[in-house]
Amino acid sequence: MTSRGNSVSPTRRATVRHLAQRGVYDRAVINAILDEALICHVGIVNDGQPLVIPMLHVRVDDRLYIHGSPTSRLIRLLGQGAPACVTVTLLDGLVLARSAMHHSLNYRSVMIFGSGRELSDRTAKLAVLEALVEHVLPGRWNDARPPAEGEIEATALVGFRLDECSAKVRSGPPVDDEADYALPVWAGVVPLAVQPGEPQPDPRLAAGIDVPHCVSAYLRRPRTR
Amino acid sequence: MTSRGNSVSPTRRATVRHLAQRGVYDRAVINAILDEALICHVGIVNDGQPLVIPMLHVRVDDRLYIHGSPTSRLIRLLGQGAPACVTVTLLDGLVLARSAMHHSLNYRSVMIFGSGRELSDRTAKLAVLEALVEHVLPGRWNDARPPAEGEIEATALVGFRLDECSAKVRSGPPVDDEADYALPVWAGVVPLAVQPGEPQPDPRLAAGIDVPHCVSAYLRRPRTR
Repeated sequence: MTSRGNSVSPTRRATVRHLAQRGVYDRAVINAILDEALICHVGIVNDGQPLVIPMLHVRVDDRLYIHGSPTSRLIRLLGQGAPACVTVTLLDGLVLARSAMHHSLNYRSVMIFGSGRELSDRTAKLAVLEALVEHVLPGRWNDARPPAEGEIEATALVGFRLDECSAKVRSGPPVDDEADYALPVWAGVVPLAVQPGEPQPDPRLAAGIDVPHCVSAYLRRPRTR
Repeated sequence: MTSRGNSVSPTRRATVRHLAQRGVYDRAVINAILDEALICHVGIVNDGQPLVIPMLHVRVDDRLYIHGSPTSRLIRLLGQGAPACVTVTLLDGLVLARSAMHHSLNYRSVMIFGSGRELSDRTAKLAVLEALVEHVLPGRWNDARPPAEGEIEATALVGFRLDECSAKVRSGPPVDDEADYALPVWAGVVPLAVQPGEPQPDPRLAAGIDVPHCVSAYLRRPRTR
């Protein structure tokens, strides 16, 4: 595939065909979706059977990384170069149309195609592990005890190049049949957003340890859409 | 597979093997996850390539249904009986451990294995379409214009039996290495929940149409976890 400016030319399998008007190939849009979402759904094939497994991910530059135990079924298959599809979805709202059949959801999703590659270099692994923790909570890496050598070795990291990928986005108000706009039915969007609640201290937390800055900053982060 | 009381005996592929202590086979737990989530991720195989596609779903009794255009690639493959894996995931919180490598997420997920079956009976289709709209927003079906015959015909519904499925749940505080509990690092959980925002009326909404009861009731629904 080729890159043109900040957009990507989708390969055949990465081209959005159904509801093609919702397809987006702008790298900034794709990156923003991958960076906002905490989890992806990783699809692989095992003896002809598809498996779809939710995983924490992080994007670093032009790659998306997942991690796991080298003994897990998914990581083993991915490490053997199994073809994969990684999908990331953010739900943005309920779309309430005047007609039942035009109800929908506002969402932003990304599909990534390709084979993963295990990261083996120790320094590169440490950088991705830091990015994973920072993806869970920005600023957290410096609070926590760093990984020991044995922990780094016991963690497998698999990266996917963001070469073959596309986004699909639905936003805005419902689209009704023209005749239905005259109906006396309320129509519009109920926005949805993931919101953090009050931090719950570990029952074994020692006395005198305050909620750290990264947590309070996360709680203050604006989240309206 | 066999059912014993309210739990299911998982088949081999539906048995949670990695982190097996997180596996749950209780039908009430599985149903609650399917009913709370608005979207699933449907995995199928197309010429050896896995595809993972986000879809709106609804559970009706012991089946999970998705819908789509009969012309979509996914619906075509599913209608031909392609082996599928449908995964539903709810994200419940950030798990902040004292050590970087024990950071995690609290979540509840369900994996369903099997082949879909297209629903062709007109009355059964209408009942599932009603359930889909009610799944988006309880009470909405009676507000909206009902489907016309042509709309019902132009919508394909595919159902999956909840025979081969399992849930995987992580909840509660972080689990640190015993030695790390003495570290002066805050640890705990930041709960996450999907919250609705202020309804956004369709720009083409006619004057004098109030926000309906189903929307205001949805906004009032308690959502703390």
